[in-house]
Amino acid sequence: MDDFSAGDFAALWAQINPIGRAADDGGGYLRYAFGAADMALRDWFRGQADRRDMPVTEDGNGNLFAWWGSPWADGTVLTGSHFDSVPHGGGYDGPLGIVSGLLAVDVLRNRGVTPDRPLAVAAFAEEEGARFGVPCLGSRLLTGALDPADAAKLTDAGGVSVAEALGRTPAGARPDLLDRLSAVVELHVEQGRALDAPVGVASAIWPHGRWRFDFAGTGDHAGTTRMADRHDPMLTYAYTVLAANKEARLSGAQATMGRIVVEPNATNAIPAVVRGWLDARAADAATLDQLVAAVRTRAADRARRDGTRVEMHTESRSAEVSFDPVLTRRLSALLGDAPILPTGAGHDAGVLSTHVPTAMLFVRNPTGVSHAPGEHASDADCAAGVAALARVLEDLT
Amino acid sequence: MDDFSAGDFAALWAQINPIGRAADDGGGYLRYAFGAADMALRDWFRGQADRRDMPVTEDGNGNLFAWWGSPWADGTVLTGSHFDSVPHGGGYDGPLGIVSGLLAVDVLRNRGVTPDRPLAVAAFAEEEGARFGVPCLGSRLLTGALDPADAAKLTDAGGVSVAEALGRTPAGARPDLLDRLSAVVELHVEQGRALDAPVGVASAIWPHGRWRFDFAGTGDHAGTTRMADRHDPMLTYAYTVLAANKEARLSGAQATMGRIVVEPNATNAIPAVVRGWLDARAADAATLDQLVAAVRTRAADRARRDGTRVEMHTESRSAEVSFDPVLTRRLSALLGDAPILPTGAGHDAGVLSTHVPTAMLFVRNPTGVSHAPGEHASDADCAAGVAALARVLEDLT
Repeated sequence: MDDFSAGDFAALWAQINPIGRAADDGGGYLRYAFGAADMALRDWFRGQADRRDMPVTEDGNGNLFAWWGSPWADGTVLTGSHFDSVPHGGGYDGPLGIVSGLLAVDVLRNRGVTPDRPLAVAAFAEEEGARFGVPCLGSRLLTGALDPADAAKLTDAGGVSVAEALGRTPAGARPDLLDRLSAVVELHVEQGRALDAPVGVASAIWPHGRWRFDFAGTGDHAGTTRMADRHDPMLTYAYTVLAANKEARLSGAQATMGRIVVEPNATNAIPAVVRGWLDARAADAATLDQLVAAVRTRAADRARRDGTRVEMHTESRSAEVSFDPVLTRRLSALLGDAPILPTGAGHDAGVLSTHVPTAMLFVRNPTGVSHAPGEHASDADCAAGVAALARVLEDLT
Repeated sequence: MDDFSAGDFAALWAQINPIGRAADDGGGYLRYAFGAADMALRDWFRGQADRRDMPVTEDGNGNLFAWWGSPWADGTVLTGSHFDSVPHGGGYDGPLGIVSGLLAVDVLRNRGVTPDRPLAVAAFAEEEGARFGVPCLGSRLLTGALDPADAAKLTDAGGVSVAEALGRTPAGARPDLLDRLSAVVELHVEQGRALDAPVGVASAIWPHGRWRFDFAGTGDHAGTTRMADRHDPMLTYAYTVLAANKEARLSGAQATMGRIVVEPNATNAIPAVVRGWLDARAADAATLDQLVAAVRTRAADRARRDGTRVEMHTESRSAEVSFDPVLTRRLSALLGDAPILPTGAGHDAGVLSTHVPTAMLFVRNPTGVSHAPGEHASDADCAAGVAALARVLEDLT
């Protein structure tokens, strides 16, 4: 790993660091899929690929692939990640995997390696679901996990559809491409404090999903409606937030209600409608299902008390992902018995894992902060990540 | 009251009914101060005044006055209300008082009345506080209850300031104008189900106010942050919503938390910051103060448990308003012993009442719905309101 330094990493990283950063200090990144910052990053990616004589292809679903070797030839090894961020998110979640992929190509070439199989560095579209609501949109389309006609109609907060943002109806499932892949390795910054070494290998992704709760009451005047006459959906929402937290703690799972939309959202008006999103994750599917059912039941109980109505809609649900155990052990051994650990976060690699032998490398996150401006990894650990990825790709190609 | 019919009312009302209505069915009105709909209504008001040979003056604070008689001559009697609405509010709250003022002029002229004192029909600016956060902005500026330099800097959600919207720094207190007023009578749709006659007279406005709670925690990833490691401000917010409701019920007061702003407001992110607004009202100041203090204490207790921080800011507080008792009794007697009733809603008349003998007329609200699309008064009751207002203005001028 002596052939790649922290300074080498920092030099390329500095090029994308300012792109999409919120103007206010500490505000994090606003890199929404196909928005201005994301498009700038995609242009930068094409430019970097060009400097490396790597042709770039697109799969009709907004995902980009830079090629060392013949595009989509048999046995292709794929690495990469995504550029998009959550609102005011960190800069490492996603881009680190793409930048590390480009740098790993440099490392291998400097070492004089000639791969026997084609290597693709991918930039997947809308991994966070921050713009159109469905996470891993690009990889779900590619694998057929999401219907392209349904996806085309998804809209952002401003009413712009996926089809409009992409400039076409997505192509959807591409088995012609997937069948050419021999292995996928996504490198990602770790998102908790679970990794106490520069680089680790993922064992599994917890089953997880997003459920939208629509709480409906009666909009009315805050000053003139007696407490006894109210049907205030904010009360039902608030109770559900606390219930989700309690149920998650009791079951050793995770539940978050961090997104809310209120109508009319005025200080002097009792809301007519409150929409709240539940993000829930657990080590196994049964625990997850029980958790979501318990939250739903408690919300419905409270709605009866408040004279409101509640409906729950499943927006996405991802089954447990166990990464390829043979590949995972092989990578860990190759990296000097690197730690093997699970994660609660979803990834494009998780979507691809049901079609291709897939593994993930994690780079240490010293603070554990993720999806927030404080997200960070040291240049030294990132350089170790590049070196590890280069070693793994050399082995696989 | 035979000289004014429901049809007469409906004819003029139909002219403003479509202005600022949300496109989606049942969506209510979006008439924000100095926004497109409000400006259209203000233009309509100038046009109607012109048709009646009523010159229009402005007070440097965005408030308009249409004159029958010499503007700002001694003894001026003022009626009117406001055009702006809460988001997705009803069409009657505010505009009914302005339209009724114009129609009352018609009634008196048709009857051949020549007033001894000037009569002004006023359209006050930003009564709801829906755009810039401070209710009764125009009347507070006019009376000096709000500093014009402070008001100038208030901004809307898009960062536009009051000074920019108004095209100038507000003029602020105008004692030169206020001193010319002999009486103020604002007609308004009733906002609860307290009035069981076509027209009533207000006795008082409950003391009320708006308090902003800033809940700060640690933004983090919803999937990878253990429940025990979280500092989630949404939990503190949710607890405070339920606590405010409970404390209000226990004290016979009213508390509403109908407005929230979350950062980053993403499904898969634990919020960093949640801002929630408390609207509280009570029959007396002591009860109101105790209610707000209790909510603050319970929020702070919960914040310690959640590892979050909470700060409370008073955005506005209005003391109890007792309308002029002599004027109120006189109006009730004039209208055949019309019912006299208090209200929990703030009004420009409440702001003016500390400077000028002031009264309010209420028009029946059969459903009690207010600040919501379902807000309604019948044409017959509105016509009765116009007739009552004409009788009162004739008596006062």
